[in-house]
Amino acid sequence: MKQFNKQATSLLLAAGMGLAATAAWSADNLADVLKARGLSQQDLLAAAKTYVPTGKRDEFVAFSSGGQSGQVIVYSIPSMRILKYIGVFTPEPWQGYGFDESSKKVLAQGRIDGKDITWGDTHHPAISETNGEYDGQFLFINDKANPRLAVIDLRDFETKQIVVNPIFKSEHGGAFVTTNTEYVIEAAQYPAPLENKKFYPLEEMNEKYRGGVTYWKFDRKEGRIVTKDSFSLELPPYWQDLSDAGKGASEGWSFTNSFCSERYVGGIEKGRPPYEAGCSAKDTDYLHVINWKKAAEVVKAGKAKKINGHDVISIETAVKEGLLYLIPEPKSPHGVDVTPDGKHIVVAGKLDTHVSVYSFEKIQAAIKAGKFESKDAYGIPVIGMKDALHTQVSLGLGPLHTQYDSKACVAYTSLYVDSQVAKWNYCEGKVLDKISVHYNIGHLMTMEGDSTKPAGKYLVALNKLSIDRFVPVGPLQPQSHQLIDISGDKMQLLYDMPLPLGEPHYVVAIDAKKLKPAVRYKVGTDSRTDKPHPGAVRAGEEKIVRKGNKVEVFGTLIRSHITPETIDVEVGDEVTINLTNLERAQDETHGFTVSTYNVHASVEPGKTVAVKFKADKEGVYPYYCTEFCSALHLEMMGYMLVKPKGWKPSAKKELAKGSYTEADYKATVKKVADTQAIIDSVVAYITSVNYKDFPDVVAMVEDAFDQLGKTKGLKEKHEGFAAKKDWENANLWAEQIWQYQVKTADLGLRAKTYLEQNGARKVK
Amino acid sequence: MKQFNKQATSLLLAAGMGLAATAAWSADNLADVLKARGLSQQDLLAAAKTYVPTGKRDEFVAFSSGGQSGQVIVYSIPSMRILKYIGVFTPEPWQGYGFDESSKKVLAQGRIDGKDITWGDTHHPAISETNGEYDGQFLFINDKANPRLAVIDLRDFETKQIVVNPIFKSEHGGAFVTTNTEYVIEAAQYPAPLENKKFYPLEEMNEKYRGGVTYWKFDRKEGRIVTKDSFSLELPPYWQDLSDAGKGASEGWSFTNSFCSERYVGGIEKGRPPYEAGCSAKDTDYLHVINWKKAAEVVKAGKAKKINGHDVISIETAVKEGLLYLIPEPKSPHGVDVTPDGKHIVVAGKLDTHVSVYSFEKIQAAIKAGKFESKDAYGIPVIGMKDALHTQVSLGLGPLHTQYDSKACVAYTSLYVDSQVAKWNYCEGKVLDKISVHYNIGHLMTMEGDSTKPAGKYLVALNKLSIDRFVPVGPLQPQSHQLIDISGDKMQLLYDMPLPLGEPHYVVAIDAKKLKPAVRYKVGTDSRTDKPHPGAVRAGEEKIVRKGNKVEVFGTLIRSHITPETIDVEVGDEVTINLTNLERAQDETHGFTVSTYNVHASVEPGKTVAVKFKADKEGVYPYYCTEFCSALHLEMMGYMLVKPKGWKPSAKKELAKGSYTEADYKATVKKVADTQAIIDSVVAYITSVNYKDFPDVVAMVEDAFDQLGKTKGLKEKHEGFAAKKDWENANLWAEQIWQYQVKTADLGLRAKTYLEQNGARKVK
Repeated sequence: MKQFNKQATSLLLAAGMGLAATAAWSADNLADVLKARGLSQQDLLAAAKTYVPTGKRDEFVAFSSGGQSGQVIVYSIPSMRILKYIGVFTPEPWQGYGFDESSKKVLAQGRIDGKDITWGDTHHPAISETNGEYDGQFLFINDKANPRLAVIDLRDFETKQIVVNPIFKSEHGGAFVTTNTEYVIEAAQYPAPLENKKFYPLEEMNEKYRGGVTYWKFDRKEGRIVTKDSFSLELPPYWQDLSDAGKGASEGWSFTNSFCSERYVGGIEKGRPPYEAGCSAKDTDYLHVINWKKAAEVVKAGKAKKINGHDVISIETAVKEGLLYLIPEPKSPHGVDVTPDGKHIVVAGKLDTHVSVYSFEKIQAAIKAGKFESKDAYGIPVIGMKDALHTQVSLGLGPLHTQYDSKACVAYTSLYVDSQVAKWNYCEGKVLDKISVHYNIGHLMTMEGDSTKPAGKYLVALNKLSIDRFVPVGPLQPQSHQLIDISGDKMQLLYDMPLPLGEPHYVVAIDAKKLKPAVRYKVGTDSRTDKPHPGAVRAGEEKIVRKGNKVEVFGTLIRSHITPETIDVEVGDEVTINLTNLERAQDETHGFTVSTYNVHASVEPGKTVAVKFKADKEGVYPYYCTEFCSALHLEMMGYMLVKPKGWKPSAKKELAKGSYTEADYKATVKKVADTQAIIDSVVAYITSVNYKDFPDVVAMVEDAFDQLGKTKGLKEKHEGFAAKKDWENANLWAEQIWQYQVKTADLGLRAKTYLEQNGARKVK
Repeated sequence: MKQFNKQATSLLLAAGMGLAATAAWSADNLADVLKARGLSQQDLLAAAKTYVPTGKRDEFVAFSSGGQSGQVIVYSIPSMRILKYIGVFTPEPWQGYGFDESSKKVLAQGRIDGKDITWGDTHHPAISETNGEYDGQFLFINDKANPRLAVIDLRDFETKQIVVNPIFKSEHGGAFVTTNTEYVIEAAQYPAPLENKKFYPLEEMNEKYRGGVTYWKFDRKEGRIVTKDSFSLELPPYWQDLSDAGKGASEGWSFTNSFCSERYVGGIEKGRPPYEAGCSAKDTDYLHVINWKKAAEVVKAGKAKKINGHDVISIETAVKEGLLYLIPEPKSPHGVDVTPDGKHIVVAGKLDTHVSVYSFEKIQAAIKAGKFESKDAYGIPVIGMKDALHTQVSLGLGPLHTQYDSKACVAYTSLYVDSQVAKWNYCEGKVLDKISVHYNIGHLMTMEGDSTKPAGKYLVALNKLSIDRFVPVGPLQPQSHQLIDISGDKMQLLYDMPLPLGEPHYVVAIDAKKLKPAVRYKVGTDSRTDKPHPGAVRAGEEKIVRKGNKVEVFGTLIRSHITPETIDVEVGDEVTINLTNLERAQDETHGFTVSTYNVHASVEPGKTVAVKFKADKEGVYPYYCTEFCSALHLEMMGYMLVKPKGWKPSAKKELAKGSYTEADYKATVKKVADTQAIIDSVVAYITSVNYKDFPDVVAMVEDAFDQLGKTKGLKEKHEGFAAKKDWENANLWAEQIWQYQVKTADLGLRAKTYLEQNGARKVK
């Protein structure tokens, strides 16, 4: 064993694999570790394919719906590390989401019938597209339970807008974008009367209940949905499910499937067979084929009717204008997925063993020829299945959703009941490979697999049950996303990832290089409106303004103090505290809270945020920075004093003094000089190497000098007090210089470590 | 290269390493992957040390505070995969936390001054201990911003109780448990008047503001804190920070450090030096040494005073009774950490380069001898530093927190400013090793490193800044936890883990084998009280009870229908929906929501949950199961019909019928027979192998037969309808048999896959 390993090491070295300059590694160690941890060679290969060492980055970024958590989950591939939970429909205090005034306004856009909805059942995220390719600018996500759609800006990963669907009572089939993100598509799920707050009995299901699909107009420049330019198509009370937008050949069209086209009404408590029996009794449901480009023109021409103030094209109009067709599809399908070239549409029927590949060309030919096999009960022309099908392929039990490979004609379909992924060829209609997953896969996802240019490489299986895969954490278990290598002929399972919060329903993944988020805001920005915040001030402009019983604070945050450090109010005052983070340094976020007043703000560099509350109880309430932002973070605090009405200070009371002596002052001055020597030595090192080649280091150095710059004038200040023998003030202002020095040294040392670990080289 | 790799493969095989039976692996592949991904041999070793393949489990489970997210994060080591976010102080809809009636009551315990506080700033988790060792039964976590403490039961990982500190306005230094979890220790942070809602000006800081430490009495049998048996010690207005309980030699004592013993009041807006200058001007602060066992007796003897109804031992009484001593400690310390044997107490002063090792024996000798160097301003005896110190060791800039190894005398201390971890020997007072981390480490944590028996192996560095480590996700970046191998002489960095939600402050990790959570509840359990839920019913007992304008539903959930499937109410009714999950199968959680009514429940197997709301708007509101629980999950729904007051159905209206024929019925009967044949073949396979040796498979098989058992009586039912030529009902009830068959097949196939992948062997 030893013999081999030594040989292996030297051979690897000879082959130029590069061995880190450390004594710790040896092939012995590796073999021992594999043995001790019970890892096979196959496991080692999978580890090598997924491990991302410190300082390196992942290839793809996945945006996953957070299910009932109401959030979006961001993770990176292939390491499967979760980078961020974005608050979308649910308040989230770490981000201050729902706890500061600007984000409260975003959440308030999502009120329904005048009431706050403090969660969502997020299902299908979609990345904005340009020419059918992911562009990494915006993310859209729906709420099934409370039919809504949210817009997230990928410049700062914040939720900017929530729109409420004006006519649905539930929606599952959103969000899907058209190829240039002209529209975001969102389909209803459970039929209901379209008029808001309107009751009709279930006996009138066929006449009064309706489904539909909404096309939300997106203004890319503003980064917001324009509700007045959005519209819907009324659809029969089939239970619409997922959609997909046409692309390439099928550009301008969209496809929405359905189940329970039986329009069955259950009632197990009354002795009727339940929905699950009646909704899946027939062998086919209907794929809705919609010409959305023409539909938009029809709306523009004034042919839509208004329901709840929203433009809705009636079924009758849709049929008359040639916007809407049906095709039978087998059985209770979930996914409808247009191929990258837009020529085919793949439907997976959960209760059928087949995937059905429809030809857009055949569909158009049938429409052109007026060749319909029938009309449904609502007068919609039905294209015969055989007239639209390219092929059908039997894959297994419970086909659910299909994604595409970078290789031509290759698709992957999840099989829920079989707990497998099938790899197959949709041109030739043949199965290529299968792999077992753990367990009960719902959706699956390939890299950019929804776009016109899938990137191949990896597939993620979104398994609904994890059961025995992870260390148990009680009856409520995580779901599991399994990473599968699809680069070869055979699929290979690489990694099991638990999902710790929410039931992710669907994921989209984009090449990490396409994302260009900011690291800071322009100073004084309201991040939710992307506009200057009216409460922003610069350093030195901080103030407290009182008008009647309204107290407004205009404050700032910088390592490591809050300005102001005292806020005096009277009980009953309405208090607004605006805070601007003056930092420019990457990752130097400050937080803010006032004890027991239920406010919290996350204030990233440059951001301005306001919190607001009624100071309804007397007493002394500390406020503080909630981010561990420096060594003196705990000292970054202040007191809000809520005084009884009309309280006046006793004239003789003064703040207690310390007992600082000349010796204390001199010691502090010496400490400052000693620390400056350390800083100088670090600066000497940094400037002796090519630090300017490392943008992160340049930022740190700028920040360090920024901190040191804050000592300006303080030397004169402490020397002035010393001259007057005010040792208290002299000592404390000298101490304040040291505080800035500590932050400077902190940054300098971080920069030095970075340079040492990243191969900086000496310069003249 | 090729040559080497072939050789390597055969040598590994010869060495019995075991090569998975797959064509995909080869040493070629491994070398190619390392090259393509730019991984060094050192990286490969780290990957091998952290990768956990599918079906295997991690060694340790970490419980991390979720910071401002108000939650607890559960992750496993060494893979650093996050398993669960537990809702604690912040409502969390996935878990139904704050959205169902029982969990609302838990959150309501955390109201302060009569108002909801919907978040927390969680800081220090603590696992319950027996004889100073982690026992894995309970977890405690504090809220700094709104001084509260929560109890989480590790049988189901749910928050069971929140208690509000009756005298503090902020608290940072909790939770720490005594060696048998008699008490949970929680210290104040920012001084304030102890009387609630009492205002005193800052000029009276020294006289009227106080700190303190609370000892919460824990009843392990009930799993709840007993507030009436809890008490606090009044402390001077030094800013108390972390604590630790004595153990072994120091059993019965506890230690709480402090900073800003200057009692400085800032005011930068008024030209005063800020808190950061004045709070760190002196070279030492005070370590509080407290005899909690004796303090409990003093309270029992009636010597405490009541403040806000809570027992508080005054400083005067504490001094008189010999409960409280001070020792100088250098400078603005954060961690105070008792060694595993309880003989030493290590204090890390953030603004000093030293860690100070105090000897409990010396402290006791000084107390016994009455040898004090002074009294502080409040009359508390101060033990001289030199009389209490064992040694001091200079480690670097910003020492913060210390944890222990399984090896004797070995400790690890985080260095915030240096961004390093120092390994050192606290017996001999020497530095052993240092490693750089990325960046600005706050706390650190070794496996069971707080207990009397640290488990060694791994260390986690809790870095406050990640900056350049991960794919960027906007100005608000994740923090990073870095896993470090401490099994050898030299520390080795293994893994960078981003924290996606909240700023974790501190973590505790326990051997995974010590956790024994349940996979289901006893049927009808209210998980928040651990008692039978009054709304629970069994299958067949479902009912809707109306009393005046109160409608109460007693329903059940099982794959894939909700009973009842229709809920009729009138506008203005107060609706309570109780739901019992009838599943027994592991991981078969159902969720429940009613469209737009802002309720959500997570109903794990056996649990009963109630949601409650006012049906304040007319209309048709779908409700549904929010977990993807089976292939027919989307059909698991019903309608709440909110009718106008006094609405009466028109007599002639009936539910629409399908158009099923005898042929449909016969086709369904055939499908049922065909499916049964598949089930029989799967059953034949399972019973042909030693499936009883696999507990998870046994559970799946039980569940499968449970599902199939539900078809009982349905054959007679559909045949009865067929005899009457009621093809509609005949067909649908036959279809319902098939629905159960699909779930049975699903389980059977999952069991079969498991057996095949886990080496089941043929039995007779």
